Amino acid sequence: MAKANTSAPGGFPEFTPAQQRVVQHWKKTIGEVFEKHGFPLLETPLVERAENFVAKGGNPKEIYVLDRLLREEAVDQDKDQRAIRFDHTVPLALFVARHFNELSFPFRRSVIGPVMRGERQQKGRFRQFDQCDIDVIGSENLSLANDAQMVAIIVEIFEKLMPEQKFIVRINNRKIISGQAKAGGATPKEIWEITDNREKTGQKKYEQEIAKAIKNKEVFSIFSDKVISEIDKARKKRDWEKYLELLENSLGKLHEECKAGLGELRKVIAYLDSMKIDREKYDLDPFVARGLDYYTGTVFETHLVGSEDLGSICSGGRYDDLAQIFTGKQLPGVGISIGLTRLLWQLFDAKILTPEQATSSEVIVLSRSPEVLPRSLEIAQKLRSKNIPTEVYLEPKKIQKQFAYAQKMGIPARVIVGDDVVVETEDPGLEKKINSLL
Amino acid sequence: MAKANTSAPGGFPEFTPAQQRVVQHWKKTIGEVFEKHGFPLLETPLVERAENFVAKGGNPKEIYVLDRLLREEAVDQDKDQRAIRFDHTVPLALFVARHFNELSFPFRRSVIGPVMRGERQQKGRFRQFDQCDIDVIGSENLSLANDAQMVAIIVEIFEKLMPEQKFIVRINNRKIISGQAKAGGATPKEIWEITDNREKTGQKKYEQEIAKAIKNKEVFSIFSDKVISEIDKARKKRDWEKYLELLENSLGKLHEECKAGLGELRKVIAYLDSMKIDREKYDLDPFVARGLDYYTGTVFETHLVGSEDLGSICSGGRYDDLAQIFTGKQLPGVGISIGLTRLLWQLFDAKILTPEQATSSEVIVLSRSPEVLPRSLEIAQKLRSKNIPTEVYLEPKKIQKQFAYAQKMGIPARVIVGDDVVVETEDPGLEKKINSLL
Repeated sequence: MAKANTSAPGGFPEFTPAQQRVVQHWKKTIGEVFEKHGFPLLETPLVERAENFVAKGGNPKEIYVLDRLLREEAVDQDKDQRAIRFDHTVPLALFVARHFNELSFPFRRSVIGPVMRGERQQKGRFRQFDQCDIDVIGSENLSLANDAQMVAIIVEIFEKLMPEQKFIVRINNRKIISGQAKAGGATPKEIWEITDNREKTGQKKYEQEIAKAIKNKEVFSIFSDKVISEIDKARKKRDWEKYLELLENSLGKLHEECKAGLGELRKVIAYLDSMKIDREKYDLDPFVARGLDYYTGTVFETHLVGSEDLGSICSGGRYDDLAQIFTGKQLPGVGISIGLTRLLWQLFDAKILTPEQATSSEVIVLSRSPEVLPRSLEIAQKLRSKNIPTEVYLEPKKIQKQFAYAQKMGIPARVIVGDDVVVETEDPGLEKKINSLL
Repeated sequence: MAKANTSAPGGFPEFTPAQQRVVQHWKKTIGEVFEKHGFPLLETPLVERAENFVAKGGNPKEIYVLDRLLREEAVDQDKDQRAIRFDHTVPLALFVARHFNELSFPFRRSVIGPVMRGERQQKGRFRQFDQCDIDVIGSENLSLANDAQMVAIIVEIFEKLMPEQKFIVRINNRKIISGQAKAGGATPKEIWEITDNREKTGQKKYEQEIAKAIKNKEVFSIFSDKVISEIDKARKKRDWEKYLELLENSLGKLHEECKAGLGELRKVIAYLDSMKIDREKYDLDPFVARGLDYYTGTVFETHLVGSEDLGSICSGGRYDDLAQIFTGKQLPGVGISIGLTRLLWQLFDAKILTPEQATSSEVIVLSRSPEVLPRSLEIAQKLRSKNIPTEVYLEPKKIQKQFAYAQKMGIPARVIVGDDVVVETEDPGLEKKINSLL
């Protein structure tokens, strides 16, 4: 018999047991912060009608659809194709459309789970990956305090997950860029794109492309080197009042939309102050535009300080229209998304995170002889009853073999049962806790 | 423009936000108990090679495979079909095969997540559903203490999830039935099936079918009514020593395999006693056989007392061969599985569970006027910093509208901010906690 090909299909990633501890810890922490801020986890099916994905801009070459391995009859395969979600936003829009009359608005939900895209295979790109999203959807208007809350949530998540790592949330408002574009006779989309590319292309190329795009040059001005250096000074001092003033005075003839954007930004900062979010945790950046078409106001991205080459690790923004084509209503929203699988893959690859423990157990109980196993089982149950994750080495093996297993799994504490019971760990708190239960 | 068909594809279930609170609570609790017992969550891809599913008994008519909505070129579609997992056992076998040399044995893992089966549509049957599984895999032998631990885990999970609900884990050992079958010249499989059906068909039909299947009648005996009534007495008294003695004396000529099965059962009970598992929580049942072919020793099923018609809510057993066709090695294991989606659907449908809260927030902060919103935001952040899930009604709406939202969402506590701050809740503990932070 030919040996089975058991390899994982390309692009469908698999973390090691040790890496999985990190994945699970991140998912748990992210989910807890989401729920603590009023965004309950809400799972929707992996599958929706393909036509709805296409209607919302999905790429038919990358959308996976379900067929059966053996199809009995040619059922209505084309009319009713089941497609796997490629993000969490379209399923959210469909959920809202389906349950509009039962839901309370503002409607908040979080989701942590897999999506699939049939992308070309390359290092660090996956065809199945976990995204962690939250969104709040209003039925008419939606307070800018919601935008500020997104920043508070990002800050809390990464403070919890990477307490040693400096990170920064960069905030801007797209209306400022759109207003400038409109004043200059260009389309907002082209100016967003040029702005979004500035970090890659550099200031010079940025200026050339802006000059090319702008028709109405007399009412338009881009920031001079002098203004940029003043803006940078205000940013370093976290003097957002000065920052807004500089922008207001340097944008040429202020289009209404610029004014609106500046006003929104001012409110978001005021709410962040009310929430006592440390100004060191975020930055205002006039060049943040984000790639996606549908953002209309506040936009966010998040960078690890010193590892900016990883790109944004958490992004999002305000949108005016979640699901008009599904609901017939214009529903405003604001949301953020963490591309968890890709991010953790990068952090493992760059050795920014190095997982050490291959299991969830904090304690392993070892038995010097098979006769003491009942005692070991009893001890383990006692520790579990106090919520200490505990496993027992159940096989009748030599104690050396049991120690080797415990070490390979990276379990922080060992309870060795023989004529007496010995606790071994480098964690004094855990040692005390275990001893108090024995 | 024709209105989009936004309905969910048939068989892909969607719970309401309130039901989702229960789903999430169950997943979290089940995952915590799994991990507390040394079974770390380990996610494997949703997708594997279709040929491997077929090799392990998957039904090609029910296996979903991935195609692309728009295929650019006829790539190696047939040779390398990507199929969606239909259970968690085959993916576990493939994971073990792929990583055999890196893993430490006994290898434990848990998984909570979706699988898909293209079943015929009917009430309470789904094409995507969550299964919660744990398995422990040995490299050679595997102590029967593992089987006992499965029972301890089932008991802990349902005590936590349904503290008011009586449930019972029914335990048997298939070797007892296999040994009888062999002594009587029948195949174990046919006797398992007849035994498994007894609850549906009744004792009379069971006896007829057994009589038909058994060739070597002189060495075979089924339990007489008298023995069954004695067995039932022992079961009621939880006198497992008596139970085993009755079986031993009533099974006709004791085949070696019967003896082995009885011995295993005796050991499992001894381990359960060591773990101080209340004998009231489980039952020995000579007619439990379970449907799946691959079980070889201990088998479990779990029933809600008074709702036995729901069927088993958590089942599992011991198997000798997880993945020989993938690994070339005979790896013994024992595992259990909870069909979460189906179970919760049944519990909602039968009104055994009635979800009340539509969000994760324990507290909502309401503002008597838009001016006090900054104060509301500050209070919410303070409550969150003490891990109290809190949301703020952020929109500038009349207070009545805010109350109506809070009530519709079923949030247990309200903090109303105006000239003063008022706490309203029927939970005195929560009230105290909130007041201490204001």
